[in-house]
Formats: sequence, structure tokens, C-alpha cells
Amino acid sequence: MIFILQHTDKYSKARACLINTDHGDIETPVFMPVGTAGSVKAIHQRELLNDIKAQIILGNTYHLYLRPGADVIKEAGGLHGFMNWGKPILTDSGGYQVYSLTDNRKLKEDGAHFNSHIDGSKHVFTPENVVDIQRTIGADIIMAFDECTPYPCEYKYAMKSMELTHRWLDRGISRFDETEAFYNHKQSFFPIVQGSIFKDLREQSAEKIALSNMDGNAIGGLSVGEPAELMYEMVELVTDILPGNKPRYLMGVGTPANILEAISLGIDMFDCVIPTRNGRNGMLFTREGIINMRNERWKNDFSPVEKESECFVDQSYSKAYLRHLLISKEILGAQIASIHNLHFYHWLVSEAREQIFNDNFANWKNLMLKKISQRL
Amino acid sequence: MIFILQHTDKYSKARACLINTDHGDIETPVFMPVGTAGSVKAIHQRELLNDIKAQIILGNTYHLYLRPGADVIKEAGGLHGFMNWGKPILTDSGGYQVYSLTDNRKLKEDGAHFNSHIDGSKHVFTPENVVDIQRTIGADIIMAFDECTPYPCEYKYAMKSMELTHRWLDRGISRFDETEAFYNHKQSFFPIVQGSIFKDLREQSAEKIALSNMDGNAIGGLSVGEPAELMYEMVELVTDILPGNKPRYLMGVGTPANILEAISLGIDMFDCVIPTRNGRNGMLFTREGIINMRNERWKNDFSPVEKESECFVDQSYSKAYLRHLLISKEILGAQIASIHNLHFYHWLVSEAREQIFNDNFANWKNLMLKKISQRL
Repeated sequence: MIFILQHTDKYSKARACLINTDHGDIETPVFMPVGTAGSVKAIHQRELLNDIKAQIILGNTYHLYLRPGADVIKEAGGLHGFMNWGKPILTDSGGYQVYSLTDNRKLKEDGAHFNSHIDGSKHVFTPENVVDIQRTIGADIIMAFDECTPYPCEYKYAMKSMELTHRWLDRGISRFDETEAFYNHKQSFFPIVQGSIFKDLREQSAEKIALSNMDGNAIGGLSVGEPAELMYEMVELVTDILPGNKPRYLMGVGTPANILEAISLGIDMFDCVIPTRNGRNGMLFTREGIINMRNERWKNDFSPVEKESECFVDQSYSKAYLRHLLISKEILGAQIASIHNLHFYHWLVSEAREQIFNDNFANWKNLMLKKISQRL
Repeated sequence: MIFILQHTDKYSKARACLINTDHGDIETPVFMPVGTAGSVKAIHQRELLNDIKAQIILGNTYHLYLRPGADVIKEAGGLHGFMNWGKPILTDSGGYQVYSLTDNRKLKEDGAHFNSHIDGSKHVFTPENVVDIQRTIGADIIMAFDECTPYPCEYKYAMKSMELTHRWLDRGISRFDETEAFYNHKQSFFPIVQGSIFKDLREQSAEKIALSNMDGNAIGGLSVGEPAELMYEMVELVTDILPGNKPRYLMGVGTPANILEAISLGIDMFDCVIPTRNGRNGMLFTREGIINMRNERWKNDFSPVEKESECFVDQSYSKAYLRHLLISKEILGAQIASIHNLHFYHWLVSEAREQIFNDNFANWKNLMLKKISQRL
């Protein structure tokens, strides 16, 4: 992976970068649509490519491991081949999904023991086998296996958890170094900063992660219920420690406002289910504000969801039509809302990039925040 | 509406025709995808146009009347504008949906009294207001309000029901003649032959319908559970009576085999939810046979659903991937299966049309029937 820091905004820590992978370039700041089980829900791959202009998408190791299973993906030549996606892919390590299983998992020193949410079958994720699985899936960027702490979290638990994550990181890196990519492209391994909302733990973790000297670095365990201000505080603290010559990825974040704030603190990469999940439920993001598309108010509004948008769903369908589809539980409603929101997220980070090059990001961000956060 | 009978197959009653409407031409035999509530489920309008090559789609008066309601559709300039579909539309009259409500409707001389399946609210469909609603929806082809008899059905009930349908037809035609299209395009009104599976009733009904001298004619009350052979017998009887210089539409039919048989008996137009509904459940139609895509057998089959198909879903996705999506209940599975099946139906009737022009339809049909009906 080649990383080029192209420009840093004069009045904030926002950066415009270029990440080169064997599956092509990624211009940052970048938002990565989430393709949980090998599909970004309700969206065809050609729509991701041509309409949403996705540069990289995410796959979930936990979901792909359970279904269709690593054997099927291997036989398909990796996830790129299996789902027919020629651009970069990042897979998470399954840590967050295992964390979400709460009552159906147990963390031990060796790894996470859990029961499948599908059939209850027993499985173990270790720092080593999670690397192996991600080698098989074949993502361009693979993630270390970590424990994501809940919020709120006692200091003592957060510390012990962070230390476990660090020991797991060493084991993960060893496995990564001992093994090779299965397919004809390179893979990069990103470690993950933990430490809950405790400054000294976050500092300690960021230093450990920075020292590991991998191709890029991630921040996990945020956006799990803590106030946004606390999240920004942690992000700032950590980005000041993580090296500037490598990409920084803030995992699972977030709303459009969260993303702009984090960009201003030096984050380059984002992923989140908000644009697709909230879209399916009728929440539409636009540059004028947030629309609850199920509201009676839009029943007879035949204007597009977003007038200025070039996306085909905004060119083709009206608010009244989309509202009707969502109220009627028509699948097309989920399709339109998901494409619109992902297109908006792409527009937002692309525009941020432009503003960074013009040293106008900070100003623009403050103007945008007011608009995009209001409810229409 | 202009109707041109272009060619009749030498060795069967199969016909190739051209129907000209204000929204464009329809080449027959034609299959009309069903867009129940203003959307062909899981499919974007541009996919209907460019990938499935749909020439005309169906809307359901019952569903559209309840949601979004005729007022919204009127304000949108009709269903064409509301859903952004520039090609022809046909709306059914709601007769079949009301028939399906069984316990929540009562037929009287004036019309059908029913409770909404959405909120239980009370409504009445009459032969007159169903014309009014379809004027508001603005379909190119609108249907008479009829009673669809169940199968099996007593002779006496079938006779009385047919007589009611005929009286309703006269009232519907009066209303149609007294009113005008709301928008800038012409509308045609099709009456419907009923009579269950009784030859004398079907003859009597076909004669009545032929005499009404409308732009086209439909056959209803079939494919409701009767053996296929009985259906074909009724279709043959009726098509021999319905005029040859007008389109013949067999409502709600059917499987690929049903369609080929009915084409050979002189039917021009079809609609059915089978390709989309069965597709969503994992049943894929191909020129080699029927695939249950959820079967373990396809788990590691990385070939396309249909090798010879030019449709983008067959070019882009494998059986193993589609199986994974369907098993995982991913929305994209429903999208792919629906597009594939509708593309296949379009291919089937287009190919039938070619064979009719070559006077080879009867031969080709017999070859195809063996292939397309087998389970792979």
C-alpha cells in the first residue's frame, strides 16, 4: 500500500490523501459503504461503482465466516471474485460483532468464544485465525482482532481490555508476518486503538499502535453511546499520536456531522451503517438537512429528495413517490433511500476533500454543520 | 390504440402483433411485469427499461386506490408521472384483489363492498367508480370491473356471477364513454370474459365481450387453481370467438409453459407475479429449466444463473453468490432473482415472436416446453 499525504488544510488538521492498493486508488477523506455479508444492502455492485462512486467497501469477517463460509469464498477466488467487486475491500476483524453478541460470547486470553446468531453453533475467533480468515476473504485492508469496550465502562475493565487487545495485536501481527496473501494482490494490516474514554489509556494505546508500524491505523471503541464531544476529544488525542504519514481510520462513524468533525481532527477513513440502515427506515440525508421521509408532510411533494444531486435516484424519483414506497414497505423504497444516502455521504467527503485542497475546510465545515444537522 | 396483426404462425394460432399507444408501441406476444403499488418489486424503473426491456407494466387499481390514493396520483399527473415510467401502463380493475379478500368483502348488485387490508376501512368499488379511478391513475389500458369466480365453482354460481359481470360491463362502458382521459394521452378499455370452466358460459361470455366492440379483450377467472388442461380448453374456446383484429389478454398467467401454450392458442398479452414473487423465494427460470437457487447443490457453483443470457445480473453474479444472498435474506438476492426472471420472461416471449414470424412457433414450442419445465 502506498500512502501519499497530498495536502493538509491550513486552518484545521484535515488532510487530503491518496492510498494506492492493488485494486486501485482511494482518495481521502473516504466513506466506505458497509457490505456486511458480501452485499451493500439493496444495492447492485454496478450502482456502487457508477452511481455512488464507492472507492472501497467493507465486508464483515464475522458474517462472511458464518455464511457463506471461508471455503466458498476461497473457491470463488476471494471476496472480490465472489461478489464481483473489482475495487478495494476492507474487512473488519469480527471484534465488533462478537462484542454485540453480549450474552452469546465469552472472552478468554486465547480469543473470543461465541455462538453463531444463525444456528447457535459454537466458534472461536483468535487473533491468529482472524488473520487466516481475512487472508482467505482476501480484502486489501484487514483488521486486527480487538475487544470493543462498551460505554459506559469502568476504568479498570477498560485498561484490562486494552491490554488484552494489545497482546492480541502482537499475536495478530506475528500471524500476518508469517503468512502470505492467497491471491494476486497485497494485503495491509491495520491495528486498532482502544482505551474507552480514558485519556491516559487512549494515549497508551495510540503509542502502542503507532509503534507497531503497520500500513495504517484505526481507532475503535468509539461511537458506542458516548457523547459526541467525548468522542471528538478521544479522536483528537489519538490522531496527534498516530503517525501522519499513514491513513487513519475511525471505525463505525457516523452521522454526517460526526464525519466532518473527525475529518477536521485528521481522520481519513470512515465506515458506518447509518446511511443504509437509516435510509431503509426512511431517514434521508441532504445538504439542506435531514428528512424523515415517512412524514405526512412529503405526501404531495413531487420535488426530488435533493434538487442539486446528480444521482439518478434524485433525477428519477420524487419525495412523494419515495414516501409512498417506504410507507408501503416496497423494496424499491429501501433501494432508493440507500443509494441516495450513500451518494450523499460520498458527495460530503468529496466536497470536504476539495475544501481541504483550497484551505477552506474549517470555514466550509462550520457552514455545512448547521445545514446538514437540521431536521427538515 | 392502433392494432396491427403482423403475422399468424402457419401451424398454430400464435400471432405476432403490434399495439400502438400514446406511450409507444407494444410488440406481442408480450409479458407485462406487475407493479402492484407503483413499483415492480425490487426493480428500478431504469432496469425495467434498459435491462428487462419491459414494453408495458401493470398497476393494481385496488392497491393504488388505497395507497397512495387517487388524489396523490392525480396531483402527480397520473401514475406515469408519479413513478416516472414513460412507456405504456395497464391497470387491472381491482376485481381480482377484491375476490382475494374473501372474508372482507360482499358483492352486491351495485358493486363490491370491502374492507381495506391495510386499516380495515370500508370502501365500495362499482363498475363506474373503478373507471373513474383508472381515469385518474391514467393507465393506457384500463380494465372492466368483474367478479373473478373461484375454482371449483358451482355452475349456478358461475352463471349468476357471469351475468353480474356482464351487467357491470355495460355500466362500465357507459361510464367510460361518458368520461374523458385526464391527461394528454388516450385510454383504452378492455372487457373481461368470465364463466369459470363451463364451456357454454365461456362461449356466452366471449360473445357478449366480443359484441362490446372495445379496443381489446381479456380473459379472466383462469389460473385460479384449475388443471392447466382445463385452462387451455377454455382459452381455445374463447380465443376462437374473440375478434382476431384486437389484442387478447389472458389475465394472471402464468408459468413459462402456460404462456407458450396460451400463445399457441392466440393470446397476445400476459401478466403474472410468478417471475418476481417466485424469484424472491429463490425460484429461477432459465432456458435449460427451473432452478431452486436455495438448494445446497449450487453452493459452490460459480457459473452464472444462465450462461447465454445477456442480462447484466447473469453477466455479473454467480449461482453461488445468488444462493448466498437468498439464504442470507439479503435484499440484493431478491433484486437479482427478479431481474433475471423478468428478463427470462421477456426473452421467452420475444423468441416466441421471432418463431411466429418464421412459421416455426409450434415446433419450437414443443422443444422449449420440455426444457423449460424440467427441474435442474
